[in-house]
Amino acid sequence: LISELNILNCFQHLVDYKSDELVLVGSGDDAAVIKSQLKDLVHSVDISKINTHFPEDSQPENIAYRSVAVALSDLAAMGAYPSFISIGLTSNSNDIEWYKKFTSGLEAILNEYQIKLIGGDVTFGEVSVCVNVFGYAYDKIVLRSNAKIGDLIYITGPLGEGRQGLIDWKNNKKSSYIKNFFNPKIPFNKSKYISQFASSCIDISDGLMKDLGSICKLSEVGAEIVYEDIPITNDINDLSYGDDYKICYTCSPTHKNNEFISQDFCIGEIKSGNGISIIKDNSIVDFNGNGWDSFE
Amino acid sequence: LISELNILNCFQHLVDYKSDELVLVGSGDDAAVIKSQLKDLVHSVDISKINTHFPEDSQPENIAYRSVAVALSDLAAMGAYPSFISIGLTSNSNDIEWYKKFTSGLEAILNEYQIKLIGGDVTFGEVSVCVNVFGYAYDKIVLRSNAKIGDLIYITGPLGEGRQGLIDWKNNKKSSYIKNFFNPKIPFNKSKYISQFASSCIDISDGLMKDLGSICKLSEVGAEIVYEDIPITNDINDLSYGDDYKICYTCSPTHKNNEFISQDFCIGEIKSGNGISIIKDNSIVDFNGNGWDSFE
Repeated sequence: LISELNILNCFQHLVDYKSDELVLVGSGDDAAVIKSQLKDLVHSVDISKINTHFPEDSQPENIAYRSVAVALSDLAAMGAYPSFISIGLTSNSNDIEWYKKFTSGLEAILNEYQIKLIGGDVTFGEVSVCVNVFGYAYDKIVLRSNAKIGDLIYITGPLGEGRQGLIDWKNNKKSSYIKNFFNPKIPFNKSKYISQFASSCIDISDGLMKDLGSICKLSEVGAEIVYEDIPITNDINDLSYGDDYKICYTCSPTHKNNEFISQDFCIGEIKSGNGISIIKDNSIVDFNGNGWDSFE
Repeated sequence: LISELNILNCFQHLVDYKSDELVLVGSGDDAAVIKSQLKDLVHSVDISKINTHFPEDSQPENIAYRSVAVALSDLAAMGAYPSFISIGLTSNSNDIEWYKKFTSGLEAILNEYQIKLIGGDVTFGEVSVCVNVFGYAYDKIVLRSNAKIGDLIYITGPLGEGRQGLIDWKNNKKSSYIKNFFNPKIPFNKSKYISQFASSCIDISDGLMKDLGSICKLSEVGAEIVYEDIPITNDINDLSYGDDYKICYTCSPTHKNNEFISQDFCIGEIKSGNGISIIKDNSIVDFNGNGWDSFE
């Protein structure tokens, strides 16, 4: 018979640290106690739900890995590095193997980013993972609201790989893109120099158009992007699909020859006004990609 | 048409603070930034799900209030006071009024405990609220694992009121107990002196037998409780039902005349051995209440 305790036992080895420079009280009590770090704490919450954020036939290892990765992406987008996480897991599986597999996916990503699980909750219901991430700024916090007219717009990698991975998975087609969907790599190595040089920053989770749109709205500016300069996987819909987990940032042109920044993709420029114009063959493209919204 | 943005707008007034002694960056960016407090942070996660933790016909105000209250209870059980929360909300309502009502319940409890909402996420699906609570110790952190043989066992209020409230709600019966179920009061005023005097502490969310059982297990001791000394609402099943959100703590008999502690209910004593014996009419009662588990 399965019980909350059986399930929590699967996670126990991940939270078995008696005393630590970071965590004073780990799992097994009512709450975790985190040692004060004398550094401002960066925190975000991200829910990943079956049939909404990942397909019904996803492997539990991949559900765990992906749910944590996409939550970590919000820290990278602030110029912050991850330090610990907690998880609210809902699952209707009655098979303890499911939880062991989930835990192994969790362990893989904890090890990959050298972060700790400090606690969480488990309850019965349709599979959903609420991941709480915590970290600290590399240098300074980079907001969405500080893009300036004349700043260049960069993305850290190609768009549409996650979208393609999901299509390939659904079509039972073996492809390297499937890893982009289930095991996206979060560019913390880039986040480090972005934290030093960028004027604004966001992760591309809901699609470039929506996410760059958020920078424009909060910075009260517009943007012009050049279609030919955007690395895509398939077609123009890669600009609005999401599931990319690359970073989009803006930065003064004075930094354009910086050794790190010059390796990213410069896709356009911040302009006065509002909204985003896509330029293709020197003319404005009419494109109505709204980006991802789980309610639409 | 409803969208994540429409919904987030309902919450906006709760997170509209530009700069603050606690929060440097609130909602509207990728993550919140919390100013370092030079105090160890206490953190817990609690999921409340429709049809599991609250009935399907619950009011959105009550769903919000109750979900936050039961999560705060874990802080009280550590001897900690609450400072801020974040929320992962899942809902399938397409009615913006639902979210406005949810927000008003949320606002009520934020105001009651003088705490702040620092961020969260919203996604489409069956109603579920993942509440992340954050706070700091009043004095010292009180663990589950430090009860000593000879310590007295206290509870801060009667058991079974929440259970009765749920029964009355389901039977469409007006009763004062309904508030105990939907709007439980978390005894932070008691948590303050418990933090000074208690050897161990837990909140009674899964039923006294299971929760005191957790103290016994982690402290490697047993307990003897006297049925006649336990304030109950209905019958012996109040000892294992849960939904109480009172605190159970143990404390050395040297503190039994303390002005605060003497106001709580002394229900028994920590003994050597393991497990809990219930004494009624001077003999041991055979009682198999296992306590709440959402998987059983």
